[in-house]
Amino acid sequence: MSGNSFGTVFKVTTFGESHGAALGVIVDGMPAGIPVDKAFIDAEMARRRPGQSKLATARSEADQVEILSGVLDGVSLGTPIAMIIRNGDQHSKDYSALENIFRPGHADYGYHCKYGIRDVRGGGRSSGRETCARVAAGALAKMFLRSMGIDICAYAAEIGGVKAESFDFDVIEQNPARSPDLQAGELMAAKVAEAAANGDSVGGIVGCVVSGVPAGLGEPVFDKLDARLAYAMLGLGGVKGIEFGVGFKAAKLSGSENNDPMSAGFEFVTNNAGGILGGISTGEEIYFDLAVKPTPSISQEQETVNKAGENTVVKITGRHDPCIVPRIIPVVEAMTALVLADFVLLQRCAK
Amino acid sequence: MSGNSFGTVFKVTTFGESHGAALGVIVDGMPAGIPVDKAFIDAEMARRRPGQSKLATARSEADQVEILSGVLDGVSLGTPIAMIIRNGDQHSKDYSALENIFRPGHADYGYHCKYGIRDVRGGGRSSGRETCARVAAGALAKMFLRSMGIDICAYAAEIGGVKAESFDFDVIEQNPARSPDLQAGELMAAKVAEAAANGDSVGGIVGCVVSGVPAGLGEPVFDKLDARLAYAMLGLGGVKGIEFGVGFKAAKLSGSENNDPMSAGFEFVTNNAGGILGGISTGEEIYFDLAVKPTPSISQEQETVNKAGENTVVKITGRHDPCIVPRIIPVVEAMTALVLADFVLLQRCAK
Amino acid sequence: MSGNSFGTVFKVTTFGESHGAALGVIVDGMPAGIPVDKAFIDAEMARRRPGQSKLATARSEADQVEILSGVLDGVSLGTPIAMIIRNGDQHSKDYSALENIFRPGHADYGYHCKYGIRDVRGGGRSSGRETCARVAAGALAKMFLRSMGIDICAYAAEIGGVKAESFDFDVIEQNPARSPDLQAGELMAAKVAEAAANGDSVGGIVGCVVSGVPAGLGEPVFDKLDARLAYAMLGLGGVKGIEFGVGFKAAKLSGSENNDPMSAGFEFVTNNAGGILGGISTGEEIYFDLAVKPTPSISQEQETVNKAGENTVVKITGRHDPCIVPRIIPVVEAMTALVLADFVLLQRCAK
Amino acid sequence: MSGNSFGTVFKVTTFGESHGAALGVIVDGMPAGIPVDKAFIDAEMARRRPGQSKLATARSEADQVEILSGVLDGVSLGTPIAMIIRNGDQHSKDYSALENIFRPGHADYGYHCKYGIRDVRGGGRSSGRETCARVAAGALAKMFLRSMGIDICAYAAEIGGVKAESFDFDVIEQNPARSPDLQAGELMAAKVAEAAANGDSVGGIVGCVVSGVPAGLGEPVFDKLDARLAYAMLGLGGVKGIEFGVGFKAAKLSGSENNDPMSAGFEFVTNNAGGILGGISTGEEIYFDLAVKPTPSISQEQETVNKAGENTVVKITGRHDPCIVPRIIPVVEAMTALVLADFVLLQRCAK
Repeated sequence: MSGNSFGTVFKVTTFGESHGAALGVIVDGMPAGIPVDKAFIDAEMARRRPGQSKLATARSEADQVEILSGVLDGVSLGTPIAMIIRNGDQHSKDYSALENIFRPGHADYGYHCKYGIRDVRGGGRSSGRETCARVAAGALAKMFLRSMGIDICAYAAEIGGVKAESFDFDVIEQNPARSPDLQAGELMAAKVAEAAANGDSVGGIVGCVVSGVPAGLGEPVFDKLDARLAYAMLGLGGVKGIEFGVGFKAAKLSGSENNDPMSAGFEFVTNNAGGILGGISTGEEIYFDLAVKPTPSISQEQETVNKAGENTVVKITGRHDPCIVPRIIPVVEAMTALVLADFVLLQRCAK
Repeated sequence: MSGNSFGTVFKVTTFGESHGAALGVIVDGMPAGIPVDKAFIDAEMARRRPGQSKLATARSEADQVEILSGVLDGVSLGTPIAMIIRNGDQHSKDYSALENIFRPGHADYGYHCKYGIRDVRGGGRSSGRETCARVAAGALAKMFLRSMGIDICAYAAEIGGVKAESFDFDVIEQNPARSPDLQAGELMAAKVAEAAANGDSVGGIVGCVVSGVPAGLGEPVFDKLDARLAYAMLGLGGVKGIEFGVGFKAAKLSGSENNDPMSAGFEFVTNNAGGILGGISTGEEIYFDLAVKPTPSISQEQETVNKAGENTVVKITGRHDPCIVPRIIPVVEAMTALVLADFVLLQRCAK
Repeated sequence: MSGNSFGTVFKVTTFGESHGAALGVIVDGMPAGIPVDKAFIDAEMARRRPGQSKLATARSEADQVEILSGVLDGVSLGTPIAMIIRNGDQHSKDYSALENIFRPGHADYGYHCKYGIRDVRGGGRSSGRETCARVAAGALAKMFLRSMGIDICAYAAEIGGVKAESFDFDVIEQNPARSPDLQAGELMAAKVAEAAANGDSVGGIVGCVVSGVPAGLGEPVFDKLDARLAYAMLGLGGVKGIEFGVGFKAAKLSGSENNDPMSAGFEFVTNNAGGILGGISTGEEIYFDLAVKPTPSISQEQETVNKAGENTVVKITGRHDPCIVPRIIPVVEAMTALVLADFVLLQRCAK
Repeated sequence: MSGNSFGTVFKVTTFGESHGAALGVIVDGMPAGIPVDKAFIDAEMARRRPGQSKLATARSEADQVEILSGVLDGVSLGTPIAMIIRNGDQHSKDYSALENIFRPGHADYGYHCKYGIRDVRGGGRSSGRETCARVAAGALAKMFLRSMGIDICAYAAEIGGVKAESFDFDVIEQNPARSPDLQAGELMAAKVAEAAANGDSVGGIVGCVVSGVPAGLGEPVFDKLDARLAYAMLGLGGVKGIEFGVGFKAAKLSGSENNDPMSAGFEFVTNNAGGILGGISTGEEIYFDLAVKPTPSISQEQETVNKAGENTVVKITGRHDPCIVPRIIPVVEAMTALVLADFVLLQRCAK
């Protein structure tokens, strides 16, 4: 139980180091009889794949998902669905230079203290590549949720200080920044390119909107819907904060400003709450924002220490996204889907 | 499994409606042989208790904790420690006016959709009173952690737009706002009083600092240390956001600004990360901020609907904190303690 | 997580030492809207209570269950239901003689090695009194199951070598042995009385039959229905074995003898399997037998060692059932109910 | 959460249908720094593999384990260890004849009722082939346990009515029945051959002995050591009963006969308890017996029904072990190892 499982009834367990033989996931709890569209899984994987644009790393990973169990003739069996993604080029590079030092902004030192041993190749288990498995699992959850009319959409709300000002979700996949504002998307891309040219990186903010969620999902105390979403999102490397609805702005509002009045037909007049009250969905759109830090892997020289605790410098070479916002977007959607699929099933036991 | 348990090895399960017979908690996983100081539990409960100042509700709850099991002669037995807190005045008021309507900003409508039945008295299970049980459990976790030199301190960083500018933790318990800045604390209190006079409420920001945490706590994927803390904190009613280290500001920084260099002796030169990298503690101070919304219970008239979905208005009477920041502070510390106690034990199995 | 929780969706967590302030349980996962009949809980507790007959200990425990949460106006709220049972006479005896020695047949030595500390009064957490909490929880599960037509009945199949030859479930509560065969019940009682007169004890076999279970309950791999029942039953102190259907006799049969043919209308011609195949219920009656060891507390002098590992003798005084079969019967039913309630809910998520 | 995970801290999750692409397992919780000997895993897999003797099916499965993650240079990383076993001949046969009928003694009907869909090829998820994954995981647990001196040995105690009379563990792997009594092993083999010749099958009893277990393992209430072992063993298809120590014989003993006296140096004079008292290990050898039913797949004609509930007959062709006792033995050891590895780690948190 080193924390590689997520969910209660719709439960996933992942494995895999960045440069090991493969990554993968077991999804245990997908109900039987749900159509599984392999092409949709592949499409989701393609969204996460690097090398799609100049904003992302050039590594040409195939990221082919192989379904090993739990699906027969395109329909789920109710048994665990295992999926693996082979790592094609795991022996392609010499990582020995990183064995002895701790990269700033990375988990290296913590891993060293925790396990006394680590796979330094590409970050090992702490690599962003680990999220492959989450996207594959999330694609299954999405298929289950879509059959109920629940839809999830994440996007770049801000990159390098440039904010999206308009929100047309149809244009998200049409620009490399995945901004819902095409014009802002161009400026975001320019900021990323500029940082890359300086051997640096930039951070940003990811927004996520979930529509079609019925009222009543979530559990009242520890397993609040927002608590589980926060758990899921802060479980993504690089995410440093989350806020639901008006979020941190709520700290500056009065109750009479912040409360969302209701009107005839169980409608909410406003949605400052972001679709969740007391940890339970209200039937309104759920929305939240995530703070994403700038990629820690930069090619500028940085001060750090080696295993002996002595001062040294490190200059990280190789392929690294100068901004992870565009690529984390499908992962955010995947994790959101896992949380909701779990609560949809748990709700079947509530009364 | 309606989500009333928290933790893996140091595991707590709570129960209780606001106006039922009692609230309580079972702590399963406290190691044997730890001294249990009942006076410390009582002191923690007193910190959460209402009626301490004009910032908090006037209800004079005794909040006496009774330990029912798991402790003998002041030492933990290794068996589950159950604690209950009786609700003294559960029949004191007529709540029938609230049975048929949904209060804005509260979980009422979600509960109704979820269960088809709810205890309307004082909010039932969704009442802030539920956190009593968490504080009692957290006191046990704190005792366990203190024996290892881990210390947790939360405080009011902002209330009603007034920010703390200085951070003297010794003054926190000396002002009703629990601000680490005495002067700001007075201004905060004034803002709360002003809101109350208007039948309104205010929100704020709670900060939390954990010192003495060894490097290596947390699990690398879903159970990252920050993920579990976010899970714990968003599981508190009224918390709408969380950020670790520089948090949302990281979205505007470059990698070269945000990365924390290391120097000889495994020291970090800066701590933008807030003591956690890749989900694992770095040995630096852990710090995070929470967005706390203004109390939804206000005495102004609000628009809402009844069970039939018809428009109506509600005017909430009775005792309600016009700002929950001061009283949520010991609860934030308690939940932080529960997360850390769990990871301290899990780390015993890591290698 | 010292193992005091049981179940996945219908989950119970118990606490309490034999001579502490109280025992109790939190039932988390009872669906909302189920009628809760307190009188039925009391009746189940009364069945487990000692002092009912000469077969059981003379201790006159009140065993009053107090419901602290989760039930309003006789209906479950969907929130955790906490119940406690006070220990009336916890200070009545001097247990200091047992502090320094390990009683044969008891958990004393194991506890000592495990925790380095233990509550010696009446066995502490390892006392059979702990099962009070299970019976209270099981009563809730029974109420939930009965609304679906599932009924559970346990009985004394054998005591002190005397076997029940006829199986009239209506007479079980009419004889002190809880035998379904009145005549055998008298002989069983005589065997128990004889052992008691000799300062000794006897063991026996408990049978359990569950009717009304629909086909399809249980999960195919680790959480087979029989696996969970075995887990539940071997979790009872004094149970040393379990067999389903023809059980150990199956080891001597051929496949053609042991297989249960099916006939028109999905009927099974025989039920050697005991209602479970491949871990999943078949729709036939579930039945199993339990080996119950003779009570280890006997008043004869026994050889043992003290904490220093030196030879000594112990003569156990006080109230002890010379045979626990009659009193374990309601506990067996309770645990069976907990397992089935969990699987009934989990099945809602299977397709 | 359809029940494909086992364990708390040393946790395994399996997947795979008999004739799907692959079976496999994720072991999450293996401590970092443990040497992983791939040759030992292969040797354990070979012990379970069919086609070793005339007692077992002729299928020549390669059963090659591929380690996908969690191990680097022969040492565990602390991250999840995933292993897969490809199914070589999954398209080799026409199973359409079984699609419409329910085989007696199998899980077919239950699966149909549970999921409404099933993979009929070779039993799908309910196939004994599923235990491949358990043996691979168990091999890891065994390596971890052996470093602590804990050793597990299972054997054929009885097959087709022939009992082992002598217990030389060195001869177990020298006879096809895996009997610790070479002479009895020959008779067992003859019984199996005779049944096979008649198109029938036989059952038997598996014994298991664990040595080197320290006192203090197991948790006192629901997670008793024997409860978890029973859970593990009844989770194996074909196991219909379990007994610890003298087991069902204890039902006929008096307390003075059954209790195990202790003597100087914390030795137990006898071990009727089978090494577990009150759910906690005593430091003595743990031993238990399992009732294994005769293989339900027999080539004689059997009465059954089709999906429409109409009477029909089935004659099962193809490869099937006429007795599963020899092949279940390494699986029993594997599951025992998983239980013990979990408790060894949990014990690190007990005090």
